Amino acid sequence: MPTSHDTIIAPATATGGALSIIRLSGRDAVAIADRLFRGRRPLASCASHTAHFGTIVRNEETIDEVVATLFLAPNSYTGDDTVEFSCHGSAYILREVLQAGLQAGARMAEPGEFTRRAYLSGRMDLAQAEAVADLIASNSQTAHRLATHQLRGGYSSALDTLREELLSLTALLELELDFGEEDVEFADRNLLRRTMQAISHEITRLRHSFQLGNALKEGVPVAIVGAPNVGKSTLLNRLLSEERAMVSEIAGTTRDVIEELLTIEGITFRFLDTAGLRATDDRLEQMGIERTKQSIARARIIIWVTEVTDTAVKPPFVTSGEQTLIRLCNKIDTAHATTLPQGAIPISARTGEGIERLLKALVEALPATSEEQTIVTNARHYEALTTASESLGEALSGLDRGLPTDLLSEEIRSVIAAIGSITARGEILPTEVLSHIFGHFCIGK
Amino acid sequence: MPTSHDTIIAPATATGGALSIIRLSGRDAVAIADRLFRGRRPLASCASHTAHFGTIVRNEETIDEVVATLFLAPNSYTGDDTVEFSCHGSAYILREVLQAGLQAGARMAEPGEFTRRAYLSGRMDLAQAEAVADLIASNSQTAHRLATHQLRGGYSSALDTLREELLSLTALLELELDFGEEDVEFADRNLLRRTMQAISHEITRLRHSFQLGNALKEGVPVAIVGAPNVGKSTLLNRLLSEERAMVSEIAGTTRDVIEELLTIEGITFRFLDTAGLRATDDRLEQMGIERTKQSIARARIIIWVTEVTDTAVKPPFVTSGEQTLIRLCNKIDTAHATTLPQGAIPISARTGEGIERLLKALVEALPATSEEQTIVTNARHYEALTTASESLGEALSGLDRGLPTDLLSEEIRSVIAAIGSITARGEILPTEVLSHIFGHFCIGK
Repeated sequence: MPTSHDTIIAPATATGGALSIIRLSGRDAVAIADRLFRGRRPLASCASHTAHFGTIVRNEETIDEVVATLFLAPNSYTGDDTVEFSCHGSAYILREVLQAGLQAGARMAEPGEFTRRAYLSGRMDLAQAEAVADLIASNSQTAHRLATHQLRGGYSSALDTLREELLSLTALLELELDFGEEDVEFADRNLLRRTMQAISHEITRLRHSFQLGNALKEGVPVAIVGAPNVGKSTLLNRLLSEERAMVSEIAGTTRDVIEELLTIEGITFRFLDTAGLRATDDRLEQMGIERTKQSIARARIIIWVTEVTDTAVKPPFVTSGEQTLIRLCNKIDTAHATTLPQGAIPISARTGEGIERLLKALVEALPATSEEQTIVTNARHYEALTTASESLGEALSGLDRGLPTDLLSEEIRSVIAAIGSITARGEILPTEVLSHIFGHFCIGK
Repeated sequence: MPTSHDTIIAPATATGGALSIIRLSGRDAVAIADRLFRGRRPLASCASHTAHFGTIVRNEETIDEVVATLFLAPNSYTGDDTVEFSCHGSAYILREVLQAGLQAGARMAEPGEFTRRAYLSGRMDLAQAEAVADLIASNSQTAHRLATHQLRGGYSSALDTLREELLSLTALLELELDFGEEDVEFADRNLLRRTMQAISHEITRLRHSFQLGNALKEGVPVAIVGAPNVGKSTLLNRLLSEERAMVSEIAGTTRDVIEELLTIEGITFRFLDTAGLRATDDRLEQMGIERTKQSIARARIIIWVTEVTDTAVKPPFVTSGEQTLIRLCNKIDTAHATTLPQGAIPISARTGEGIERLLKALVEALPATSEEQTIVTNARHYEALTTASESLGEALSGLDRGLPTDLLSEEIRSVIAAIGSITARGEILPTEVLSHIFGHFCIGK
């Protein structure tokens, strides 16, 4: 399938809107579209980049009035002939049009297959193709910038620089091999070591950026934790300015972990509302508390909520060194405390007092990022960089041990291959690897 | 605003897909689009029905790569110039493009405003415009057929026939008025009565079709009712072939009414899973039981689930004459009964045995409908028909009482006005009425 141009079909929009777009792409896209579409004239006789009103017919029954837009090869997203049908946005119509397309000879596209074809036709490199999925998933300015940077090739060019430096190193080493018998050293071993260390340093920096990049992409996980009835759900509702969580005065109301996204200053935070921590015999509540513990482990920031009168200093849960703990003293509208624990933020989740300070503390819990900075957001890239880092470590220790030039060169070649697999330009990755990558895309992209 | 052609903007697709479509329409749509769009040349210089690749820029920052498609007046949905931007389907990009459009001079469209303009420009009558919303909401073959019938004017022409018959009656009556002093009767009072009775009969039929039409459009409401632990949630899961409801062996697990849609033979059923009916002191569970009673009252079909060993004949709840009661005897995989209550269906929700008979019983609980049949699906139409029916009743009783011709004619004119308000062709309804109608549309349609 990697090089196939058979015709695929898929919805390109989510259901639930006024319109649905259904996309056909492949060698026979126009001929297949003409089998369902009744317009003023056949699409086969129309120019690229034109739109045509008509109807979709299935089994002699008119399904919908649509607009068909034509993008002819090579000037389409995939590089193949492409037809987009813009239909009324009904689940039934969507099903019927897809069925009609399948009957007429198309097959359902696999997730990401349109973008996969764009990659295979050389219209973008692999890191750029992956950025398309990130761009679609982006729901904050930060996530959008990371994806756009990657889509426009900023990320690819940072990797290319590393790759080229390594290539010149191997070129020098391999030149030595050509003069194998003569025992010459074209590559100054000290210079070699310093260059490799600098590259290793850069790869390490990229690898470390992943944890932050992933949090920025998916939403920084924040757990709201505390005893029952201290106002955790009220706090979440206050943050979201809506009654999302089921609020009741009965302890143990919140059984499931509720996730909500909130964007503050361009950064998305993913709030995990949790069941109150307390000893209980209720089995369903115990299940909830178990999930709370998992939420705490997953969180990058933990908001520990207590009542303002609670003087406890140590939280009733364990935190790791990489997590930021924010202590909130709630219910300042009904009670007072003479002294607060150090660093604690006094708030009233009910009235909203003090919420601004909490929002500020959330943003400040993250390191500042600049626009030009290359940040790794993709687990596949992180793995490739880890492989590169390990091979580079091997090469460096080989250099210290006086490893023969040919073995040294081979280690550096592994580093180059690992870095190259991220953009995969000019080489075709195995089908399984591509299927894994594009399998995470949505259908229709 | 009714006759305004200012430029409106709105997303036309739901978020969550690979693509988002954002639609601009109005007198300045092309000029405004050109303020955000950077393509090979300005859209203002392009022909209607053409698509153009380019970028959207906001505050000097590139938001996305898009395709802009142009539909120039009068050959667009609204009748005004229209530009559609096809963007990557991210919530962030959507917000930014909308903001860019607003900054450039467009305003956010109200719900249904595109279709409202299509109606005001005479491109469709009001019943057809309403059918657009129904078409979008349709998720079954039956709902789709009802909406398509209405959109293509089949419904409007049925109403026109009634309206014309009434108009010829008034024409005859008003001829009499012209000869007022001479006491002539052009309209045979017996023929008049028979015609009015026939029309009244047809209006009554249409009004009665509403309950069915509404159920077919929204999904026929089905309540699954029974004591705790008889397997109601398991039954729902079995019907949906997925673990939608939270199943547990602890009585009282289902607190909220869960709604699920299931389409059987082209008809959508809306299943209301409910809390088990039992005496309880748990306040949250009591709330659940209260909601169960409301579900029963709303349902058209009630599935009463008991264990197969339960010999009760009378259900522990009240049903109305218009509701169909289906008795299920569950758990036939674990227990046996020598005799079943009359009409009861033996099933095992766990293994799926007997489910086919239940599906058949659900479909048979509804009257058969044919394709040509005009069925009322819209509450506004139902109200208009009720008004028409009342006025016609007044006119008929006036006829019996020997009401003067001018008053009789006036009553019939009210009937005509009520029926005419459904399609509202050739007349402009007050803004409040239109706002009410189109306020139920989704944004972007």
